[in-house]
Amino acid sequence: MVDLDFLLDTAATLIRIPSWNGDESAAQRAVAEIMSGIGLKTDEWTIDLPRVQGHPAASWEIDRKEALGLVGTLEGDGSGPTLILNGHVDVVPPGDEHLWTYPPFEPVVEDGRLYGRGSLDMKAQIAAGLAALKAVSDSGVTQTGSVRLQSVIGEEDGGIGTLATILHGGGADGAIVMEPTALTIAPVQAGCINFRLRVAGHAAHGAVRDEGVSAFEKAFHIYAAVQALEALRNEGQEADPMFASYPTPFPISIGTMAGGDWASSVPDHLAMEGRLGIRPDESPDAARVEFEAAVAEAANADDFLRDHPPVVEWWGGRFLPSQTPLDHALVRSLSASVREELDTDAVLQGVTFGADAGLLQHVGNTPVVLFGAGDIRRAHRPDEFVEIDQLETMARTLARTIVRFCGEA
Amino acid sequence: MVDLDFLLDTAATLIRIPSWNGDESAAQRAVAEIMSGIGLKTDEWTIDLPRVQGHPAASWEIDRKEALGLVGTLEGDGSGPTLILNGHVDVVPPGDEHLWTYPPFEPVVEDGRLYGRGSLDMKAQIAAGLAALKAVSDSGVTQTGSVRLQSVIGEEDGGIGTLATILHGGGADGAIVMEPTALTIAPVQAGCINFRLRVAGHAAHGAVRDEGVSAFEKAFHIYAAVQALEALRNEGQEADPMFASYPTPFPISIGTMAGGDWASSVPDHLAMEGRLGIRPDESPDAARVEFEAAVAEAANADDFLRDHPPVVEWWGGRFLPSQTPLDHALVRSLSASVREELDTDAVLQGVTFGADAGLLQHVGNTPVVLFGAGDIRRAHRPDEFVEIDQLETMARTLARTIVRFCGEA
Repeated sequence: MVDLDFLLDTAATLIRIPSWNGDESAAQRAVAEIMSGIGLKTDEWTIDLPRVQGHPAASWEIDRKEALGLVGTLEGDGSGPTLILNGHVDVVPPGDEHLWTYPPFEPVVEDGRLYGRGSLDMKAQIAAGLAALKAVSDSGVTQTGSVRLQSVIGEEDGGIGTLATILHGGGADGAIVMEPTALTIAPVQAGCINFRLRVAGHAAHGAVRDEGVSAFEKAFHIYAAVQALEALRNEGQEADPMFASYPTPFPISIGTMAGGDWASSVPDHLAMEGRLGIRPDESPDAARVEFEAAVAEAANADDFLRDHPPVVEWWGGRFLPSQTPLDHALVRSLSASVREELDTDAVLQGVTFGADAGLLQHVGNTPVVLFGAGDIRRAHRPDEFVEIDQLETMARTLARTIVRFCGEA
Repeated sequence: MVDLDFLLDTAATLIRIPSWNGDESAAQRAVAEIMSGIGLKTDEWTIDLPRVQGHPAASWEIDRKEALGLVGTLEGDGSGPTLILNGHVDVVPPGDEHLWTYPPFEPVVEDGRLYGRGSLDMKAQIAAGLAALKAVSDSGVTQTGSVRLQSVIGEEDGGIGTLATILHGGGADGAIVMEPTALTIAPVQAGCINFRLRVAGHAAHGAVRDEGVSAFEKAFHIYAAVQALEALRNEGQEADPMFASYPTPFPISIGTMAGGDWASSVPDHLAMEGRLGIRPDESPDAARVEFEAAVAEAANADDFLRDHPPVVEWWGGRFLPSQTPLDHALVRSLSASVREELDTDAVLQGVTFGADAGLLQHVGNTPVVLFGAGDIRRAHRPDEFVEIDQLETMARTLARTIVRFCGEA
């Protein structure tokens, strides 16, 4: 049913095209060609970035020269529910290539794994989606509802591609974001927003350190307050079965820290950048208010920071949370297909990472789940890989779900 | 006796020449011209940087294209003690010029102060030294000992200019480093060495923060250990009258901190750069060993750091400490001259900042004190300034000291 050679060839073709830092057009053109090759109707357009960036849900970090939109459709007869498969062609930077055993842009198959940047997150998953569509198409049976595969740019820096695609072509009756969930079904997804904390100090020569105030020491104080807030925000979350397996489903994680200009001066500034996890039932605005209040309270408890309060900035990537009822037809169709493929009950659990699902739900008004091959913990790292048997299962499960959800004509 | 117009004109001329980031030749040429103008014999040469940098006491941070040496001599008859006046023409970067009320390279005289980058640290002090030599020269009385004004480059980044000048022309019977001491006499100077601490973490996606180890949190642990070591190293130092006025005469101050690459990843690396104060009676090597042991001990007390110990690097600027007995002829001559000028006993106290004095003592075998106009606390800051009355007193005191120390023929 599923053509594994096609799946792996497609994945390898896409991995070979570096598509980070906003250079995504070559990857989009390659996907478009493959879509045409398997008989999908393709819709390709140049995204009007300034217009999309003006939307209230827009977020992005990279200033692109060009952004392409791409949707490949397997037409139904128009009488049944429509389905979106969503996958992003952009990848995170390879980082220090010396840390890779396998070259990031030369896909390697070894021990049942496919290695390469984007093998997991998420070019091979796009390939699996295409393989599923090819299998349904090759079967010769028309569906009542059409299936649209959205190949999008800009997920890693905030989802501008999915937003543009929704604004261009609207939502559907259901959407599957093909992020790696290790074949579990995620009807619920935490959101996250990026923050920057600017903490002040008072400069002095390091030789008379006592006369200054170290921005680092003040930053430690704020860091501790942020950690306390994280504990508070995650209290009792283990009662939610969707997040029971996570010790901290909605982390506040600080990822960069930089301050001071001169080794022998007392630093008068430090900036920390991080991500604030959003609960599925929470608005990002409410989370922002809570975060700012916690920082202000911590500052108020410190003699220096009371007069020099830290500045909180919200910037870059912003991922809305999403949740779809567990008894929705999409969840049921996908669960039934997983059970058929794996001969065991599907595992349903929430995911804590941000992705494009929130945009599909909140802007596209589309019930959405995440489902895909591979372990997200391997993402954004050297020697990223995905298990090939999971990829094949994913493609077969998607093909079954298309038939089940969209209906045979 | 002292020509104040000459002093201020000279200071202004030098402040107008930006001389940071290794671009010091224009300033050296200007000083040479002024030296010739007041009748000093000048010795100018191009420093053989690779040769000087091979010396065990060499330290520098900036890779210079060109470095000029310059000494202006007021010849004595050769029968008396020789004196060195030492001043550096390099300045620290102006930083954000918007933070300056006065433009950094356009000297302004206002309310008895001279403003501008280098007004305090230490172009105006070179001008005061030149004014003192001019006064002695203009008096027509020959000294028994000659006086050499060393105009040097590269003090702010480790003293390569003073080292080159000592290697070129040797030491003397006494040296005055004309750093701003607010007209106190500093026969004792702490040293300092720069360190870098690299602290590891374990990367993970910020969405599953618990699966990583934050390099920041580990860095806080090491920071606390460094602070504890600072307290230990400064314990009981208030008993030393030379440092009684400093709460912490030998600070360990961390001035830069940078780590992590991505807001939503758990950071696996952080580097801190700082300066370690050296006691006058201590060897930098002994201080290094103590510091490394304290870091290792702190790492050993932490489950993660025990297996991923921080790396300590010693880099860039390194300033040897110096001390000259309080009853040395140089200290006595300068004290007597201060008493005559200020009509009060000279204040003798140590300084905690690094300067070129250590090189003059340890490489040049020259007893050395620091003495100059202005408050060092204003150095390395926007709106650096020096009090003009202090500059004039400094010049007059230096002229008296030359006559007293070198002897009238």
